[in-house]
Amino acid sequence: MNFRLHIGPNIRKSPYFDATVRDGVATFSVYNHMYIPGSYGDPEAEYDRLLNGVAMWDVAAQRQVELHGPDAGALAQYLTPRNLDGTKIGQGRYVPICDYDGHLINDPVLQKLSDDRYWLSIADSDLMLWAKAIAHERGLNVAVCEPDVSPLAIQGPKAEEVTAALLGDWVRDLKYFWFREVMLDDIPLVLARSGWSKQGGFELYLRDGSKGTALWDRVKEVGAPFGIGPGAPNDIERLESGLISYGADMRQQTHPVTPFEMGFGKMLDLNGPHDFVGKAALTAHRDTGITRRRTGILLDGPPVAGNEHPLPLFQGDTEVGFVAEIAHSKRLGKNIGVGLVSADLPTGTTGLCLHLPDGPRTITLADLPFA
Amino acid sequence: MNFRLHIGPNIRKSPYFDATVRDGVATFSVYNHMYIPGSYGDPEAEYDRLLNGVAMWDVAAQRQVELHGPDAGALAQYLTPRNLDGTKIGQGRYVPICDYDGHLINDPVLQKLSDDRYWLSIADSDLMLWAKAIAHERGLNVAVCEPDVSPLAIQGPKAEEVTAALLGDWVRDLKYFWFREVMLDDIPLVLARSGWSKQGGFELYLRDGSKGTALWDRVKEVGAPFGIGPGAPNDIERLESGLISYGADMRQQTHPVTPFEMGFGKMLDLNGPHDFVGKAALTAHRDTGITRRRTGILLDGPPVAGNEHPLPLFQGDTEVGFVAEIAHSKRLGKNIGVGLVSADLPTGTTGLCLHLPDGPRTITLADLPFA
Repeated sequence: MNFRLHIGPNIRKSPYFDATVRDGVATFSVYNHMYIPGSYGDPEAEYDRLLNGVAMWDVAAQRQVELHGPDAGALAQYLTPRNLDGTKIGQGRYVPICDYDGHLINDPVLQKLSDDRYWLSIADSDLMLWAKAIAHERGLNVAVCEPDVSPLAIQGPKAEEVTAALLGDWVRDLKYFWFREVMLDDIPLVLARSGWSKQGGFELYLRDGSKGTALWDRVKEVGAPFGIGPGAPNDIERLESGLISYGADMRQQTHPVTPFEMGFGKMLDLNGPHDFVGKAALTAHRDTGITRRRTGILLDGPPVAGNEHPLPLFQGDTEVGFVAEIAHSKRLGKNIGVGLVSADLPTGTTGLCLHLPDGPRTITLADLPFA
Repeated sequence: MNFRLHIGPNIRKSPYFDATVRDGVATFSVYNHMYIPGSYGDPEAEYDRLLNGVAMWDVAAQRQVELHGPDAGALAQYLTPRNLDGTKIGQGRYVPICDYDGHLINDPVLQKLSDDRYWLSIADSDLMLWAKAIAHERGLNVAVCEPDVSPLAIQGPKAEEVTAALLGDWVRDLKYFWFREVMLDDIPLVLARSGWSKQGGFELYLRDGSKGTALWDRVKEVGAPFGIGPGAPNDIERLESGLISYGADMRQQTHPVTPFEMGFGKMLDLNGPHDFVGKAALTAHRDTGITRRRTGILLDGPPVAGNEHPLPLFQGDTEVGFVAEIAHSKRLGKNIGVGLVSADLPTGTTGLCLHLPDGPRTITLADLPFA
């Protein structure tokens, strides 16, 4: 179903909003209280650019929570069960954030800009409220704010060519998740090798919201010889690649999930020297073991449309999990999805059932990623 | 501008979603990570029902943050600068919530269900993260969660007739902001005399999300003789009435505002016995005095369309504030709005300027409410 979205002053516009409208954005969603483009009206071309060429995405809604002050590192460490020792200036790291029950409340990338300044590049929840409350109640000497920073992603196999043409050949040496502060003429940026796809690429963290159209147009111009075109975070590619979508795959309010269930328990440092939010609960989860696990699924039958809400997964009459999101992958010639199932159901289990609007589908559990 | 909204699994559907789609919802926005109806395609009829008849609104996105446990009252008090002493079971109170800098981060209605259970009926920010972090870091014995509770509002001068026909004549004696737990056959509700309009009415807090369509249809059926029809929180009426919209009028990330600037400083108990978040900062704000104040505005010229984002307000070349939202009030025959201006500009100040897409408008400062 598609409905009209009313654009009103209670939701923020991205600095790229005007440029995306001019360039034909057709659908929006809302993420971190900001409008985020969903499609430019030609999903197949947008997918094809991401897989075989290069795409530019307005992902300004991936807001930053800045930790600034002498205790910035201490706060960052207290917020995540991952051990951050040895994190270098210029390095980014994926940091699951849990509440005191060990449930995920966000899964940002942490960027260390200096010893006393970190950014958390957040998924769709108000992590600033969480970080502010914890910092203050623990008496840490750190300011928490949302700076004027708005990422623009360049994604796809030709992203490196475009980014090198834009900023220089040095970008080719940037390692995954590493970043550098840089000026593009008068446009202040942080350039990171990152992005929510597995097709390779960069994110340009614009540090001056008044220059959104200027940056968009520079990328568009420099990318033109490489066939760049607009796009947006792509649900089909993310399912093929097994990427995590906070909000769809888990959300504190609706389907709380632990890092162990998501399959990244090994990332946590439960026996290390650091205290962090949820340590006791996560230790208990580890000791108890999981009853659910993240899985890929294959659906039989004709191509599926995307789902609008999580779907319960059945084995006979028994609910054995839920499917977060499904899509038809033309590239793979398969209907695929991700979800959580009972941990005692191994990959290859078949004969499960999902009820779609057009009827039941037989489900087989599959490994992630698909591609 | 209107765009399509993609309905995907990362944003929640309201329990009334299917019923509102069936009844012709045309536009949605997103509020607290949930789709919320904006209009059913006939804004004039929807406004008229609210002013002269009765309307039913899906406001499930006004989620509840539940505080449950021996320290629930202590946590509620620590979260707000308002003195909650003497709050009775069954009573609701408007409670501004500030951060440690004294800036508003939400403005919910607090409902006391029992000595150890409170609900905060929240505006559009993740107050649960805030409350959870503070409760745990302070060692309070209270669980914080989002219960399965979804308000449906009945608003307008005939709302009392409809609600009495639905639940009995006792509802006529319910005082403003008071509530009662009640069953409507097998549908568990909390009925409150409340709602985001000044036209009178009730909110039915549905306590079982599986019964959304059942409740919607009961209200629709019982309300039919009174001419009930679907609607949504109404921007024109809220501007006429001077109601506050967190997100539009202020938002922590984009335009932080203090309670003094919003005009409800008298609600705060800075000299009382209770400690609460932001006490020191708010005391300093009080002592310093405000430099900005909330105001109504009148715009000259032909009827205005609604704005899409906050607009800077000028006196000559000097920016003297911002306007959060504007609309044309047919009832008043005026273009109206709300915003913040320099505190030294009194009501009646004229000759200010707002730049709209169709040209500049002359602005006069006015008292709130307009009607």
